[in-house]
Amino acid sequence: MSHNSFGHLFRVTSWGESHGPAIGGVIDGCPPGLPLAEADIQPFLDRRRPGQSRFTTQRQEADQVRILSGTYEGRTTGTPISLLIENTDQRSKDYGAIVDRYRPGHADLAYELKYGLRDPRGGGRSSARETAVRVAAGAVARLVLGPAVRVRGALVQVGPHRIDPARWEWDEVDRNPFWCPDAGTVPVWEAYLDAVRKAGSSAGAVVALEADGVPPGLGAPLYGKLDAELAGALMSINAVKGVEIGEGFASAELTGEQNADPMRMQAGQIAFGSNHAGGILGGISTGQPILARFAVKPTSSILTPVPSVTRGGEEVEVMTKGRHDPCVGIRAVPVGEAMLACVLADHLLRHRGQTGR
Amino acid sequence: MSHNSFGHLFRVTSWGESHGPAIGGVIDGCPPGLPLAEADIQPFLDRRRPGQSRFTTQRQEADQVRILSGTYEGRTTGTPISLLIENTDQRSKDYGAIVDRYRPGHADLAYELKYGLRDPRGGGRSSARETAVRVAAGAVARLVLGPAVRVRGALVQVGPHRIDPARWEWDEVDRNPFWCPDAGTVPVWEAYLDAVRKAGSSAGAVVALEADGVPPGLGAPLYGKLDAELAGALMSINAVKGVEIGEGFASAELTGEQNADPMRMQAGQIAFGSNHAGGILGGISTGQPILARFAVKPTSSILTPVPSVTRGGEEVEVMTKGRHDPCVGIRAVPVGEAMLACVLADHLLRHRGQTGR
Amino acid sequence: MSHNSFGHLFRVTSWGESHGPAIGGVIDGCPPGLPLAEADIQPFLDRRRPGQSRFTTQRQEADQVRILSGTYEGRTTGTPISLLIENTDQRSKDYGAIVDRYRPGHADLAYELKYGLRDPRGGGRSSARETAVRVAAGAVARLVLGPAVRVRGALVQVGPHRIDPARWEWDEVDRNPFWCPDAGTVPVWEAYLDAVRKAGSSAGAVVALEADGVPPGLGAPLYGKLDAELAGALMSINAVKGVEIGEGFASAELTGEQNADPMRMQAGQIAFGSNHAGGILGGISTGQPILARFAVKPTSSILTPVPSVTRGGEEVEVMTKGRHDPCVGIRAVPVGEAMLACVLADHLLRHRGQTGR
Amino acid sequence: MSHNSFGHLFRVTSWGESHGPAIGGVIDGCPPGLPLAEADIQPFLDRRRPGQSRFTTQRQEADQVRILSGTYEGRTTGTPISLLIENTDQRSKDYGAIVDRYRPGHADLAYELKYGLRDPRGGGRSSARETAVRVAAGAVARLVLGPAVRVRGALVQVGPHRIDPARWEWDEVDRNPFWCPDAGTVPVWEAYLDAVRKAGSSAGAVVALEADGVPPGLGAPLYGKLDAELAGALMSINAVKGVEIGEGFASAELTGEQNADPMRMQAGQIAFGSNHAGGILGGISTGQPILARFAVKPTSSILTPVPSVTRGGEEVEVMTKGRHDPCVGIRAVPVGEAMLACVLADHLLRHRGQTGR
Repeated sequence: MSHNSFGHLFRVTSWGESHGPAIGGVIDGCPPGLPLAEADIQPFLDRRRPGQSRFTTQRQEADQVRILSGTYEGRTTGTPISLLIENTDQRSKDYGAIVDRYRPGHADLAYELKYGLRDPRGGGRSSARETAVRVAAGAVARLVLGPAVRVRGALVQVGPHRIDPARWEWDEVDRNPFWCPDAGTVPVWEAYLDAVRKAGSSAGAVVALEADGVPPGLGAPLYGKLDAELAGALMSINAVKGVEIGEGFASAELTGEQNADPMRMQAGQIAFGSNHAGGILGGISTGQPILARFAVKPTSSILTPVPSVTRGGEEVEVMTKGRHDPCVGIRAVPVGEAMLACVLADHLLRHRGQTGR
Repeated sequence: MSHNSFGHLFRVTSWGESHGPAIGGVIDGCPPGLPLAEADIQPFLDRRRPGQSRFTTQRQEADQVRILSGTYEGRTTGTPISLLIENTDQRSKDYGAIVDRYRPGHADLAYELKYGLRDPRGGGRSSARETAVRVAAGAVARLVLGPAVRVRGALVQVGPHRIDPARWEWDEVDRNPFWCPDAGTVPVWEAYLDAVRKAGSSAGAVVALEADGVPPGLGAPLYGKLDAELAGALMSINAVKGVEIGEGFASAELTGEQNADPMRMQAGQIAFGSNHAGGILGGISTGQPILARFAVKPTSSILTPVPSVTRGGEEVEVMTKGRHDPCVGIRAVPVGEAMLACVLADHLLRHRGQTGR
Repeated sequence: MSHNSFGHLFRVTSWGESHGPAIGGVIDGCPPGLPLAEADIQPFLDRRRPGQSRFTTQRQEADQVRILSGTYEGRTTGTPISLLIENTDQRSKDYGAIVDRYRPGHADLAYELKYGLRDPRGGGRSSARETAVRVAAGAVARLVLGPAVRVRGALVQVGPHRIDPARWEWDEVDRNPFWCPDAGTVPVWEAYLDAVRKAGSSAGAVVALEADGVPPGLGAPLYGKLDAELAGALMSINAVKGVEIGEGFASAELTGEQNADPMRMQAGQIAFGSNHAGGILGGISTGQPILARFAVKPTSSILTPVPSVTRGGEEVEVMTKGRHDPCVGIRAVPVGEAMLACVLADHLLRHRGQTGR
Repeated sequence: MSHNSFGHLFRVTSWGESHGPAIGGVIDGCPPGLPLAEADIQPFLDRRRPGQSRFTTQRQEADQVRILSGTYEGRTTGTPISLLIENTDQRSKDYGAIVDRYRPGHADLAYELKYGLRDPRGGGRSSARETAVRVAAGAVARLVLGPAVRVRGALVQVGPHRIDPARWEWDEVDRNPFWCPDAGTVPVWEAYLDAVRKAGSSAGAVVALEADGVPPGLGAPLYGKLDAELAGALMSINAVKGVEIGEGFASAELTGEQNADPMRMQAGQIAFGSNHAGGILGGISTGQPILARFAVKPTSSILTPVPSVTRGGEEVEVMTKGRHDPCVGIRAVPVGEAMLACVLADHLLRHRGQTGR
């Protein structure tokens, strides 16, 4: 079952609410003997951490991860790795106003319809805070994949403003608060998001992911396909509404010969002339870079009032005063990377299990 | 594990190759006491069946399903339902030419990289023929959902030609060979696909799905989200490269207040003013219609030569002479419906298990 | 989920009823490239086949297995292997008398309490006929394990009569209709079972299993322990009521120093002085032979009347006239071997997946 | 996958080592709305806690459980329940002597053969300390089952000394340090275990479990059988070597008519004349009490020297000086109860999911 777990051989189980004492996760199935300490995870959490620019929530969380099990003398033992991150800055009073009213676009109503009750503090389980656990697990997944596999992400669209792919520079990604690979777009987004923030509104975004060095053969027909599980993993991230592999929706407009990635021999190896497939054919990696994109809807918690109702059935206007990301898509970049890393690590182990390769 | 299974409480395991003696599947966990006979499944298989117009493959398959277990006197017993569909029209010789060469855009190379060998007859396991099993399972899933839940699909784009959403009529879908909901678009697609077919090429497409009457509360945080599992299920269909829930990628361009679906009370019930969310918030159904879309790449097996290589490393031009769908997206409509029905049926049982509702 | 499946990486899903058209199973996750044809499976089915002596049911089944998928040119392809065995000798009329009455000790009542209905023909899903699927899957599992691993079983007790372990000869097992390893016990069992059969009664039994050559390291703490999963697999066989690993219940009477298997070095390898542990410590194989035993209750379908009730609540005496095994434990020997082989094959792949060894 | 998880809808994932900072577990799938606080769990942990008599290890652990997620205002929310128990009394130096030598009968060697390394402090993951997590999860499972289901256990054999079943009194179980239901046996065990302890040895034991009030219909053919999953769950407890359901191994000596539990009508309900089946037929509960037994081998960590080897291949005598249970079977009573409760809770939810009952 997979209510709060994902992966099979590299399996992550996540727990925790936004305003409980802590959040955390358990990684089961990690190969033994890998060097692992908190310092291997913390840098990835620091990248995701809020409050680092005016474009993300001002909530301050140290996001210090602790490893409670599964390592001995700095190496993984093959037993479950328990990760814990304390919640230090919960201002639950900020949310008092929305205990009895459903924020439009948010999970408030859905949780209550399902469970008959909900933890309203900071969105409870539905809070984007949980993505810290995914990022921590992704850091471990990277160790499983090894240094030959490089998993990267970038923000490629904020609201209506897209980057110019021709100006893509990976080095630029770490130089601005947006993980934007196109220096020319940075000031456009700054101006746009400042206006959005001042208007008490929020903006959607699109994230692009790439994994290089992925060995061929990962994935499995027909429901354990690499792209199918990646789509599920990315769509499970808060606020994601669309996922593409390779050419994605644009492939619908191509003809068969345009879409086919031609093959030639190069130094004794098969070389592809293009990568419309996004590195996956028939659900199995080909050795080309894995390419995926996902769309993040605008943050639902906004200062602008939206018509809604209360638990008691009264009609109200809801505005959410807490500290929110004007564009939650920004912090989705490290989260998307982490999910991609986890899916790849799981499939690496599954492939090795079945084929011995 | 989920190499060739999907779902948890309503669990489908699929098997079979394009040119083996048969394909089939096993449905485990179906509720007992449901009236079920072959006649409940066959109409859905007939909708998917090839050879019904010049726009789909000319392969002729009876696609007669047999129920081998799990029913007694016309009712499900709660034990596994084994479904079998014989392959009757396998012209393997058509494929002789591609035994040693990799069709670009196809799974040939990927399977060989993974397994070290492959069944080349008709694409083996990677053939779209397997989708018949999904459709059969979907027919059973509809019985689990009951008559109050209506799962429908339509083709909304072929190549560059999109329907006009303003002219959408569900009744039109069954009147043309494309499952097109817009009568005005039908001749456009006819002309386009005739040209594509004559050119030995193929076209991509986009399918839209809708499920009405879905009870609220289906889905589960955080990795068993309804939208996450639906995304995985749709992406697992052959040739699918993108999935959207509700507003999908377009949500990236909206502001928070545009994207939020406002709520008002109507006759004592919560009524939404829009459905950007596609009926799912926080991974849980809200009672609004579930809306999803997916993109299907153009068929990879085309008559137009594309540069490729052989197993031996020789550079060649590959053209595939078999009988192929010029637009595999057409037949993906009933397949997409089936996957949606299966995901909903599984979550219906899971929700009932956890909450007793 | 595991209603009708077992294993994870080597995963078997079983389906079929005693008197339906066929029974069968799907093996998912089998490594590619293994030579596999029906002839590799049939001998194991023939060993389990009924009607081979007067001590097993006189039902005549050819038990011919067909492989419907997952192989190409005599080798596994890594895709699901579908196995089908037709039911050819169903005399359902034999069972007419028990459609409305519950056979004591049988699953009739339990199925009806669970599902609200049942397939009464030959016990439906609860029939020991299903064990043919397990045996077929076990034959494939043996191929996964390879020739270095030898999985064997023997009957060691029938009713109150136990073999003399000091006279154990594996070669004897195939020379008598009981899989008895002690030639001296064979006539005792013959006389006893002839009497039991003539009395319209039945007898229980105990089966012992051994696997040699099992590599160390299979299994996983704490719930995927090799012994835990083996116990579950053996207890899932029809009529099994007890399972032991190594010393089993006798270990309760030992002291710590009696039970500890001492270790010494022998030719550079660790050699154990005894095998009370049954080859498993901490849930993980040590390289010693895996030893397990299980108890099979006497067949519930007997000619002797037993007090029971009807669906309508009438008190009756039930006697079952069908063709039954006077000692179902005899045919449990190849079934137990198969389950052991399947558990080992699954853990072999899982261990390789996690550790790369 | 199930390396360190068990259950499907009521799913427990466990983590932690004996001498790490803490141990814990995550319960996923718990129904929402159940009243749950630490005080509901603590009494069960206190029953299992070491150091309460001279017959269990003198290690002192507070075993205070903390609930870190999944509840709000004292009720379960349906999201994962994270349980954490700190390790407060780890005297790792006690174990220094066995870092490089393998304790016979212990998991030391097996872990190292599997993973290539191990955490030697207190047995690491293989320590019986982990059973505290099972007990905590069992306390939550009891809440899922509700007050109508009563899960109890008792010790029925220590070394060669068995209780007299005719003197069984459940009330006696809580009055002595052994969970012994037969007051007359208590002094016998006291004398025996004092001698064992003084001799630096240890003793095996047998535990009996009973669950009353279990609704009929729990379990599922053929691999998700209630008895099969219960056998796996009990065998997964440290040091367990045998499991029996109902009559267990004794059923092998019975005839069909002796073993069949006769049925009669009583006040409009089916009443059984005996319970050889242990409440389970065909893998499904019948409404009779569930009866199970399991054998616990003598503690492997003893003061008596046993021949062994070191990592370097040197032959040595190993004696373990830590604080150990002379009879680990005593503390296995609450652990067995917990596993039984967890299996029943999982099947209750699964049954409700599939059948709606």
